Amino acid sequence: MKRANISNNVIRRMPRYLRKLDDLAYQGIDRISSGELGRQLGLTPSQIRQDFSCFGEFGQQGYGYNVQKLREEISSILGMKHGFSLILIGVGNLGHALVNNFGFENHGFHLEAAFDVDPALVGTDVGGVHVFHSSELLDYLSRNKVDIAVLSVPRRLANNMANSLVEYGIKAIWNFTNIELDLKSDDVLVENIHFSDSLLYLSYYLAARLEEDGEN
Amino acid sequence: MKRANISNNVIRRMPRYLRKLDDLAYQGIDRISSGELGRQLGLTPSQIRQDFSCFGEFGQQGYGYNVQKLREEISSILGMKHGFSLILIGVGNLGHALVNNFGFENHGFHLEAAFDVDPALVGTDVGGVHVFHSSELLDYLSRNKVDIAVLSVPRRLANNMANSLVEYGIKAIWNFTNIELDLKSDDVLVENIHFSDSLLYLSYYLAARLEEDGEN
Repeated sequence: MKRANISNNVIRRMPRYLRKLDDLAYQGIDRISSGELGRQLGLTPSQIRQDFSCFGEFGQQGYGYNVQKLREEISSILGMKHGFSLILIGVGNLGHALVNNFGFENHGFHLEAAFDVDPALVGTDVGGVHVFHSSELLDYLSRNKVDIAVLSVPRRLANNMANSLVEYGIKAIWNFTNIELDLKSDDVLVENIHFSDSLLYLSYYLAARLEEDGEN
Repeated sequence: MKRANISNNVIRRMPRYLRKLDDLAYQGIDRISSGELGRQLGLTPSQIRQDFSCFGEFGQQGYGYNVQKLREEISSILGMKHGFSLILIGVGNLGHALVNNFGFENHGFHLEAAFDVDPALVGTDVGGVHVFHSSELLDYLSRNKVDIAVLSVPRRLANNMANSLVEYGIKAIWNFTNIELDLKSDDVLVENIHFSDSLLYLSYYLAARLEEDGEN
């Protein structure tokens, strides 16, 4: 698969297509036109065809898309066939929410272990995942291949922990700490979930609407 | 302020600028050039000037940006001066994480109340926020002005709860349920935090790197 020169915006839409295809498969729908897919996603059919054409030819003129086949293609594009392994760093409320509610396995990921310093947690299993003491991290990583670290420690600890992870060989961090990590290496992939950015974006549009309505 | 015709991509960058300006102010830095700001954010100076020019003239040739003033301008653009009020629907692990760790007030928001059906939670305070029974929602909303509902209920309940909220007059939903809400009204702003989209995006780039390295 050629991945070069594909814009971030196209890639950002891929997981959304996948979610929609999961819904369609769940509803027992086995094929769909780009027109109907567009209507359901609020995109134009040509946008959808253009997005998919970055990766190959998935539809058929006059037939549309085979839902199951397109689902497999997009899963593959998104790297799900690799079955990436993850560890969770920080088992607070958010860590618990991730372990208990996120469904890593459903998304093709394997959450292998969790780490925390809380004596009440260390040694227990949370949602079927064993919690190690954070001091065991280096030892664990020397014995296990881990693709992604999920970072959900308090923000004051975030940078130090992230740099330790990188030092121990982690190449990808899923960052929930709401800060921009300042890493000593450029060779690490970081994906941030910045809650505040998301809420402020909503706030922007709400303010825009109030001002339009003259309620400002 | 003119908000029409400003692209989503520009608006999406605004909260990031704000975070950076908060950092700079915290470090005691009171002015910064677009060049230096660009270096720190991985953007070009012309991109930054172009983004800000959508909203007005914030910098001064040869002086750069006044950090505090730019911070206020961007806060205002993002609607923070409105002091929007929020309620939290669903006080599970994620709800607890939001109440305890997010810092709504620091971001200019007021989290006024929470709702759940768990008898162990109803009537208690979580992080200073009172938890009402979900059956009290309509009554609460008839007596209080609420701008944004934060939706963190189990996904099987998400659509019904979202449509009830809309029926009760809520105009903006911050959606943590990892599903695309199917709302009966088009008049509602929805901002989604789709954890799976974020992880799959990271997975895409990790897969791309492995394939480049020939480890595929």
